[in-house]
Amino acid sequence: MAQGQPPVEAADGLTTRQRRNQPLVIVHTGLGKGKSTAAFGLALRAWNQGWSTGVFQFVKSAKWRIGEQSALETLNEVHRDTGKGGPIEWHKMGSGWSWSRKAGTDEDHSRDAREGWAEIKRRLAAETHTLYVLDEFTYVMKWGWVDIEDVIETLQDRPGYQHVVITGRDADPRLIENADVATEMTKLAHPFDRGQKGQKGIEW
Amino acid sequence: MAQGQPPVEAADGLTTRQRRNQPLVIVHTGLGKGKSTAAFGLALRAWNQGWSTGVFQFVKSAKWRIGEQSALETLNEVHRDTGKGGPIEWHKMGSGWSWSRKAGTDEDHSRDAREGWAEIKRRLAAETHTLYVLDEFTYVMKWGWVDIEDVIETLQDRPGYQHVVITGRDADPRLIENADVATEMTKLAHPFDRGQKGQKGIEW
Repeated sequence: MAQGQPPVEAADGLTTRQRRNQPLVIVHTGLGKGKSTAAFGLALRAWNQGWSTGVFQFVKSAKWRIGEQSALETLNEVHRDTGKGGPIEWHKMGSGWSWSRKAGTDEDHSRDAREGWAEIKRRLAAETHTLYVLDEFTYVMKWGWVDIEDVIETLQDRPGYQHVVITGRDADPRLIENADVATEMTKLAHPFDRGQKGQKGIEW
Repeated sequence: MAQGQPPVEAADGLTTRQRRNQPLVIVHTGLGKGKSTAAFGLALRAWNQGWSTGVFQFVKSAKWRIGEQSALETLNEVHRDTGKGGPIEWHKMGSGWSWSRKAGTDEDHSRDAREGWAEIKRRLAAETHTLYVLDEFTYVMKWGWVDIEDVIETLQDRPGYQHVVITGRDADPRLIENADVATEMTKLAHPFDRGQKGQKGIEW
């Protein structure tokens, strides 16, 4: 990670310290791996700062993130028991949830998605967390279950010091435009190309 | 993350289970963020599987990964005290180490790098860990401190079930060719563009 001088001078009239303390919208998108994994890595930094982290998992199965969930919930228990680090909450958006749409079940998924987003909006308004991980949230916008303009407006207007990380493929260009940091993960080589499926410890 | 069928049939004669249990070489490269963060996210999954993880940090300053180090070392303590999860070791390659080369100090850095790589080779031969995170290791090869052909040969010949994740910009095409999973992180938008520097909890 670059540690040098920023390439351009800021024109916003803020001091470096003020800019440093600005809350960020971070997007991890693209077809490659690491989008969610890097978001959960950020949660480690947040924990170490003593921040409150809320993870909102917009995916189908409990299996896929079970490693991260277990480890982050353990760090939350360490915080609860010893005061070290910060609290971490992990929320799954509905039990039957799927990022691969299935005919006949869309209605429930879209309702779950809207309910999840409504809860996140309430928490942003209440400044509940310092870091929000909205995992696979891009799909919810892509499928029209949550209005992207509402998301952008909510993020722009959120009060206080709250970082929001959004992961998933096909991030809308408007979301990227409104992000402070947006990274595209691109696949260069992958075991799927050789007919290999995922394995424990690596994929979940 | 895709959960569907692999796009091509494997021609290696292995069953799905055999292929699933193959140890992987994973490369995170590119100019964007998330290369190291995603690697440390993988360590969360490894911890949850009860695997032994070794992190080898090829960077200048203790500051840059202090959040991840603190959180992963806490998970290691949980493992030590309760048996939950797996052990995690965190090693820094020399105190004066720098990924931005400085005139007059290269000799020590290159010696540190070679010593670090020699230790990793010993551990791979001894099957010490199940997951190795070689953070910012691409620079060590780029600068010629460690021979890339030696790295590739060592990875190809490593015994047992050992996953190796290598992060850093400018990964050599030969390394990518020999990886099972290689992901490029590309910057789409970034606060540096607006003159913003890194901030705690996000950058370290």
